[in-house]
Amino acid sequence: MKIVVGHKNPDTDTICSSIVMAYFMDAKPGRQGELNPETKYVLEKFGVPEPELITSAEGHEIIMVDHTEESQALDDFDKGEVITIIDHHKNGMITSKPIIHLTKPVGATATIIAELYFNNSLGFIGAKNKELTPKMAGLLLSAILSDTVLFNSPTTTEQDRVMAYKLADAAGIDDIEAFGKELLKAKSTIVKESPEKIVQYDFKEFNMNGNKIGIGQVEVVDAADLEQKEKEIVDILKRKVVDENYRMIVFAITDVLKKGSKVLVLGNSEDFEKAFNIKLENGAAFMEGVMSRKKQLVPPLEEFYKNA
Amino acid sequence: MKIVVGHKNPDTDTICSSIVMAYFMDAKPGRQGELNPETKYVLEKFGVPEPELITSAEGHEIIMVDHTEESQALDDFDKGEVITIIDHHKNGMITSKPIIHLTKPVGATATIIAELYFNNSLGFIGAKNKELTPKMAGLLLSAILSDTVLFNSPTTTEQDRVMAYKLADAAGIDDIEAFGKELLKAKSTIVKESPEKIVQYDFKEFNMNGNKIGIGQVEVVDAADLEQKEKEIVDILKRKVVDENYRMIVFAITDVLKKGSKVLVLGNSEDFEKAFNIKLENGAAFMEGVMSRKKQLVPPLEEFYKNA
Repeated sequence: MKIVVGHKNPDTDTICSSIVMAYFMDAKPGRQGELNPETKYVLEKFGVPEPELITSAEGHEIIMVDHTEESQALDDFDKGEVITIIDHHKNGMITSKPIIHLTKPVGATATIIAELYFNNSLGFIGAKNKELTPKMAGLLLSAILSDTVLFNSPTTTEQDRVMAYKLADAAGIDDIEAFGKELLKAKSTIVKESPEKIVQYDFKEFNMNGNKIGIGQVEVVDAADLEQKEKEIVDILKRKVVDENYRMIVFAITDVLKKGSKVLVLGNSEDFEKAFNIKLENGAAFMEGVMSRKKQLVPPLEEFYKNA
Repeated sequence: MKIVVGHKNPDTDTICSSIVMAYFMDAKPGRQGELNPETKYVLEKFGVPEPELITSAEGHEIIMVDHTEESQALDDFDKGEVITIIDHHKNGMITSKPIIHLTKPVGATATIIAELYFNNSLGFIGAKNKELTPKMAGLLLSAILSDTVLFNSPTTTEQDRVMAYKLADAAGIDDIEAFGKELLKAKSTIVKESPEKIVQYDFKEFNMNGNKIGIGQVEVVDAADLEQKEKEIVDILKRKVVDENYRMIVFAITDVLKKGSKVLVLGNSEDFEKAFNIKLENGAAFMEGVMSRKKQLVPPLEEFYKNA
């Protein structure tokens, strides 16, 4: 069985890209965990069912979307056969065979899929050039708006905008701005969840030159909404560092309107201070303009551990 | 300065793909070593100058073609900025930033470039969709015929054939078969070279789960042509294992007509016996049907060292 699967702690780009790729590849979409409120909102809006929970790669041909890091893949991914990777992150996986691997530094994996479709290039990755339905276009559009935080993230590229407008057209959505705000509203309901859920919401594990590093992120419309839960979040992260043997955990509370992130740093927080050349106060700092884990948090840390 | 560069010990696919990608990207093609007789023949035939020798990545934006292994890249590749990888090998590089990375399991990197061109998808990787001149088409065709050993290698795919015929058309070459035999003849002049040159001709270094493994290959029209030089080749390889600290070196003498390879194995040759479940005699064996390092030699060894 051919399955399409995104990263752990799935977000809207991972889920929507999985569903649309599965549609084009005649495969089955899977998810590696609970959907967040924004993704649920999107699937409901376009009337698309939740993908099935997948916990094992065994016996499957795997199409990985929106991740290449082994730590974000199915735990037993090497029991299946990874045949294709479509992603917009850095390369995180050495393979033992040549596979179809396509990554581009754009704002969302959905942008790459849209480009392949609109350019009649889906055949290039072994997918079918069938018609993009309005539902599928709506999913890809949602993924782009979500991952680029309505084109506000510094990861946003010209292609993201161009594809979003083409997709909005195909999905019959006239007002991208208004639709984006609906998504943002759905997304920000996360602050009402328990601190445990908030921490797990979008948490990723990285292996940086042998160091186990965790980076979580939550996007909020107003950081003040989270303030009263912050102490509990810090306590959970402290325990996580010890229990799961992290060298360091960074948790970014990204304020979408202020366009910056408050980072909470646990474990060997002096690594963070050195990597970013900043001083933390009580293990925290507000970083102006920092909105993207992939583009603004991961690379300086990778660089730091490479040379440490 | 933007440069396009292929792997060490360049072969026809690496050089021709570098030149054509440089043409489409308005970049400068480079080479990491001496050209082999086949590649020289191809460049002469189409009247294209040899790329310049490149020894450092410093200050360059790098477009890597036909390799992703760090050990096959410029020694100081991390002093430059790798922006793009176009390849048909397994993933061999973890990057610290998202880049344009495009690999496909086809017979030649040239096939991927041709597909991008004929599909009007060069823009997808940031290249210009300018016209493919007959010269450039001739280079890509030569690369495909060389890397697939005239469609005889098990790495050959339907796309390689389709692209080769389109390229032959664009290059004004009527008889692919006859042209392929010309290439084979040029290639097989390697047997007239010194044993040192034969060993270095197409030698690649791999890091397999921390083990330094060398795999060299030479394609001959008749293996008997090399027989009298074999003892000297073995002596050179034995010294190479010790001097350069290899765990094992495999040298494949691939007989294009017999469609199989005689392998010479030096260093910890018991690894090879276990990985392929065969018995060597005097450190050598003939392997029926084995023509591709990438597809038939590398994966079992990667698998073996992963589990060793």
